[in-house]
Amino acid sequence: MTTFEDPAKVSPAEARALFRQGAANPTAGWSAGFTQTNLIAVPRDWAYDVLLFCQRNPRPCPILDVSDPGDPTTILAPGADLRSDLPQYRVWENGTLAGEVSDVSGLWRTDLVAFSIGCSFTFETALAAAGIPLRHVDQGRNVAMYLTNRACRPAGRLHGPLVVSMRQIPADRVAEAVAISGTMPAVHGSPVHIGAPEELGIADLAKPDFGDPVDAEPGDVPVFWACGVTPQAALMASRPAFAITHAPGYMFVSDKRDDEYRAG
Amino acid sequence: MTTFEDPAKVSPAEARALFRQGAANPTAGWSAGFTQTNLIAVPRDWAYDVLLFCQRNPRPCPILDVSDPGDPTTILAPGADLRSDLPQYRVWENGTLAGEVSDVSGLWRTDLVAFSIGCSFTFETALAAAGIPLRHVDQGRNVAMYLTNRACRPAGRLHGPLVVSMRQIPADRVAEAVAISGTMPAVHGSPVHIGAPEELGIADLAKPDFGDPVDAEPGDVPVFWACGVTPQAALMASRPAFAITHAPGYMFVSDKRDDEYRAG
Repeated sequence: MTTFEDPAKVSPAEARALFRQGAANPTAGWSAGFTQTNLIAVPRDWAYDVLLFCQRNPRPCPILDVSDPGDPTTILAPGADLRSDLPQYRVWENGTLAGEVSDVSGLWRTDLVAFSIGCSFTFETALAAAGIPLRHVDQGRNVAMYLTNRACRPAGRLHGPLVVSMRQIPADRVAEAVAISGTMPAVHGSPVHIGAPEELGIADLAKPDFGDPVDAEPGDVPVFWACGVTPQAALMASRPAFAITHAPGYMFVSDKRDDEYRAG
Repeated sequence: MTTFEDPAKVSPAEARALFRQGAANPTAGWSAGFTQTNLIAVPRDWAYDVLLFCQRNPRPCPILDVSDPGDPTTILAPGADLRSDLPQYRVWENGTLAGEVSDVSGLWRTDLVAFSIGCSFTFETALAAAGIPLRHVDQGRNVAMYLTNRACRPAGRLHGPLVVSMRQIPADRVAEAVAISGTMPAVHGSPVHIGAPEELGIADLAKPDFGDPVDAEPGDVPVFWACGVTPQAALMASRPAFAITHAPGYMFVSDKRDDEYRAG
């Protein structure tokens, strides 16, 4: 991981260029005001299942773009290359993590369909603008993500649990965090669960399934949002022969402004 | 067409039973407060194209449910049968209208995937509640729908023009109609065009491409919303071997309440 003075001020095009050149940083707090996305690329044979899974589970899987087979570009950032412009990728074979790499140009296939899925980092800009602290950003960590005991609605061969991202929010700011994220249904919307992590089957907040543990401040309440890593959990459960995803927290930084995903 | 005293008060289950028994009525104004949907059913081989077309064109094609192949049921109305419970269907062969029938049970196939798409009748309840007149309902007619000169974003083999529904709205209520429909992005949202029909390539409002002509009152302005008949226009342009749709204006009356599709 490379250290940058103020990644919030790096433009999306600059961020993508840095990642293309090999910087492998989690993108929380990067390019403030610009939308980051989850990537999941599957062979055309599985694309209908993924698209339907996302349609049936819009809270964790809000689709912002779908590429044509083999096409590594996206309308979310003309000129970008989804094979090289993310800081870190995961390669999946038969539902098992085959490796993490910083470039998948050599692994790309002509039948791969790339799904760009909304990310909760989008509403973080709005939370921060309202003065709601983002503990993981302040602590220089990736956001904490957890597998839950909630099953997604299956689609064809795809099934799996809901994954959530967690933010520790001061108790007197939780209602505001709900209201603010609720204005952005295209990027997960309002929380799916507030407090009581054990009800989601999360035994220990200090041991996230993805990302980093994040420390609470006194008076904080854990707030859970549906997370775009959910399709990765479905890949692990449903075992397609091949897939490529982003590494959790290492997102694609698009040219879209967060404000474009505000409802109304 | 059978005449009913007050179709607004007929429950969704009663409406579906009447249509199942053969009543073939346009459903504008029926079962007030309950969501009506457009139907498009295509073979599994075309389902990915339709699903992606809807994802890429969410204003005209907001998906509320997708069935599994061959399954004629929907989560929008448990116990309903999509093969018989709409008042009128269209059967398509190679993009050409092969016929209109009131029941498609004998034509259903085990590979058909049924898409239920949001309908502008949903926000009509909210418009009426605000005292905004619905001319087509008052005149006992189907809503007027038009092909436009705007192309949808293509998806695979599917391409075609945007179809709009038109409502004549008093000039001093247009802003309110925009605001009210804008709270319901899952059912077409705010208008795509207000006034100036010629800019959409509509030469004569008195000659709609689907539905009935609707008379304006003095001071009315034509307001255009993206319409769920758009996928039918794509079928006509893209010519899959087989498809079944609702007849324009003869919708599926679901058990979902319109309020469920309000954002936020």
